[in-house]
Amino acid sequence: MDAIRKLYPLVGVDIALFSVDDERLQVLLVKRVQEPAAKQWALPGGMLKPDQDTSLEAAARRVLAHKVSVELPLVEEVSTFSGPDRDPRGWSVSVLFYALLPKDKVDALVRNKVEALEWADASAPGHRMAFDHSKQLAAAVHKLRAKVKSGKLPLHLLPERFTLSQLQRSVEVILGQPLDKSSFRRQLKSSADLVQLDEYERGAQRPAQLFKPSEEFSF
Amino acid sequence: MDAIRKLYPLVGVDIALFSVDDERLQVLLVKRVQEPAAKQWALPGGMLKPDQDTSLEAAARRVLAHKVSVELPLVEEVSTFSGPDRDPRGWSVSVLFYALLPKDKVDALVRNKVEALEWADASAPGHRMAFDHSKQLAAAVHKLRAKVKSGKLPLHLLPERFTLSQLQRSVEVILGQPLDKSSFRRQLKSSADLVQLDEYERGAQRPAQLFKPSEEFSF
Repeated sequence: MDAIRKLYPLVGVDIALFSVDDERLQVLLVKRVQEPAAKQWALPGGMLKPDQDTSLEAAARRVLAHKVSVELPLVEEVSTFSGPDRDPRGWSVSVLFYALLPKDKVDALVRNKVEALEWADASAPGHRMAFDHSKQLAAAVHKLRAKVKSGKLPLHLLPERFTLSQLQRSVEVILGQPLDKSSFRRQLKSSADLVQLDEYERGAQRPAQLFKPSEEFSF
Repeated sequence: MDAIRKLYPLVGVDIALFSVDDERLQVLLVKRVQEPAAKQWALPGGMLKPDQDTSLEAAARRVLAHKVSVELPLVEEVSTFSGPDRDPRGWSVSVLFYALLPKDKVDALVRNKVEALEWADASAPGHRMAFDHSKQLAAAVHKLRAKVKSGKLPLHLLPERFTLSQLQRSVEVILGQPLDKSSFRRQLKSSADLVQLDEYERGAQRPAQLFKPSEEFSF
């Protein structure tokens, strides 16, 4: 085993699954059952299985499907974490991905090999995390913010049809700061990512027009 | 061997080393000696060595030091490339990095296990490339452009002291389009990345002030 470890590192994937709820950016954490780091909180992750997975992204989707009974619309790579000391089992590589999902799509949670699941505040998860997962989470939040700051719309966080207020609110929660409504809407007007529907959300206030992502939309 | 391949993928690194010369963004290519893909052009790369490397980035620096006798100021990760079919030796992961360097720092080229080295046009390298290296090169160029577009200055491409005209030219070459001189200089005025020196480049025209990167500068 030691001879193998000298030649071949462990290769795994970890996933930061983000959602917006309760006016906060949240991330899904799992409490581990198995050693190493049993009983500790961590991002969901697992080892690459070369005989099953066709790519690292496919491994990330497989690993997360064990925990969340939903097809992920978006899985994006953040970066790798590597070295001899980050996992007690030996020299290891973890490839970190992130995904965005409306929280109501994951209320039917499937639990495999985890003791508990929790949606935690992505900026302050409130748990000491296993391995280098605090660093991984910070990197995923940083990448998500940078993407949204560069003008990409986090439409995967929203329901299939949404109002511009909902969209603005999710952008504000990710960036951690309020946006000016009229300049935000001016920006959206030139966006090819949105399709305006002939439908309205009827609530207590005046009806708000509904939108959906365009077919060209990519995050 | 096959049993090991089922559990452990091959893990390697590849590096897109960029420079600006002859008014073009160039990338260093090597002509491979060994199989697989012998005699084909490729980005310089190699296998991770868990008993030598402290991280994937360290592996990238080690692999490139075999080919270029210089300490790299910047090595940044682009993304991973993975799957069962990208390397005939089996399921493999390559972690792609890029680096920026002034070309005159690498004129003393060390050649190890390569038949030839060439600076090629990064947008049109003019060779059919080994493995998935065409895709890798395109991804590295895309990431470099996105970074420069977001306002990061590619100072690692420049000599230790440089004029603002040199800086503007390198940005224009990366983006592939001319920039308005006065608005580019206005932007630079608010940049904490530059230190104005009390030195001037004296040439045929009027002396141009020299600058260096500030200590806070990061790409």
